Amino acid sequence: MKLHGYFRSSASYRVRIALNLKGLAVEHLPHHLRKGEQRAADYLAINPQGLVPALVDDAGDILTQSLAIIEWLDEVWPQPPLLPDDPLARARVRAFAQAIACDIHPVQNLKVLARLRQLHVEEADVTAWAAATNREGLAACEALIRGMPGPFCFGARPSLADLCLVPQLANARRFGVEVEAFPRLLACETAARALPAFANAAPERQTDAE
Amino acid sequence: MKLHGYFRSSASYRVRIALNLKGLAVEHLPHHLRKGEQRAADYLAINPQGLVPALVDDAGDILTQSLAIIEWLDEVWPQPPLLPDDPLARARVRAFAQAIACDIHPVQNLKVLARLRQLHVEEADVTAWAAATNREGLAACEALIRGMPGPFCFGARPSLADLCLVPQLANARRFGVEVEAFPRLLACETAARALPAFANAAPERQTDAE
Repeated sequence: MKLHGYFRSSASYRVRIALNLKGLAVEHLPHHLRKGEQRAADYLAINPQGLVPALVDDAGDILTQSLAIIEWLDEVWPQPPLLPDDPLARARVRAFAQAIACDIHPVQNLKVLARLRQLHVEEADVTAWAAATNREGLAACEALIRGMPGPFCFGARPSLADLCLVPQLANARRFGVEVEAFPRLLACETAARALPAFANAAPERQTDAE
Repeated sequence: MKLHGYFRSSASYRVRIALNLKGLAVEHLPHHLRKGEQRAADYLAINPQGLVPALVDDAGDILTQSLAIIEWLDEVWPQPPLLPDDPLARARVRAFAQAIACDIHPVQNLKVLARLRQLHVEEADVTAWAAATNREGLAACEALIRGMPGPFCFGARPSLADLCLVPQLANARRFGVEVEAFPRLLACETAARALPAFANAAPERQTDAE
């Protein structure tokens, strides 16, 4: 399989962790987002959204959107599972993941921050926007798993929730968010980053890292 | 069950359609988003994100995030299915839904537009921001289902994709987007709105509609 991605893209990072947890090797095809390579015509033919990641399976089928890709991986390669069996527990894990993937990440991504600059918003306010989005979103995430058993977000093994959390915490730090305010999230991150599947998926370990 | 929502919230609208398709009656508990009722302490105790919808099941369990709620409904009440059986087909439907729920909706919601106004972005630019987000996102959605059979987004019956599309098209029109540019999406919408499950979920049919 081939993964179109970018070392610093947190959505690509989520999929890299899932592939590692499943023990699946893929060819990595980097697209430099800051240079706009994701808007090249040949890439738009693969993903009309002009976003990474996109996964191309062995039959040549194209999958887009990180959460959809991860659920597909989990359905086709069920071990180790990334979602619990019980429907209510699955809904809680998905809701946590979506609180990050819908309500934090897209509001602080490169494209939105670039649009703010086009509107002549000052650089300090652009950073404050990204920081506030992360801070408020992560505070809600901390509350969403209050009382849940650890060490991961939802118990004894990593789930879709941890796959979303670890990349988002990296973003939050880049924007200067005081992540110490979220002790439960940090404990999950520590447990996750101790696993090779997470460690090897980190941006700085990718071939296109700068 | 009880659904915390708001007539104009497109995420609430998605869940209303799903409940109607499944034939499930719920008590509707409206929270007036423009008056900030979703940030009241008693609602934050239900959903720490301060967002609607939130569904409370008959056991009192709370579910948040519209897509997670809809997948839960589909797992617990499988008929009629809102996702296909085949993993690749499921991934395509989920990706389309997430292209809306992650990359359009959160970037043009009330909260983000309010934050733009706080940064003294002019009202015309706020509307242009929301319109551009809808226009670009829906253009990608039109491409994502190119070649798929109709009349719905992914074939002969409505899926999670249509549940996301119909509310988003309503938003796009409110921001002045020329939706005629998306003939395939409009054809899906026409097919969907002809169904009572969609028609009865429309904002103007809700008890809190203004």
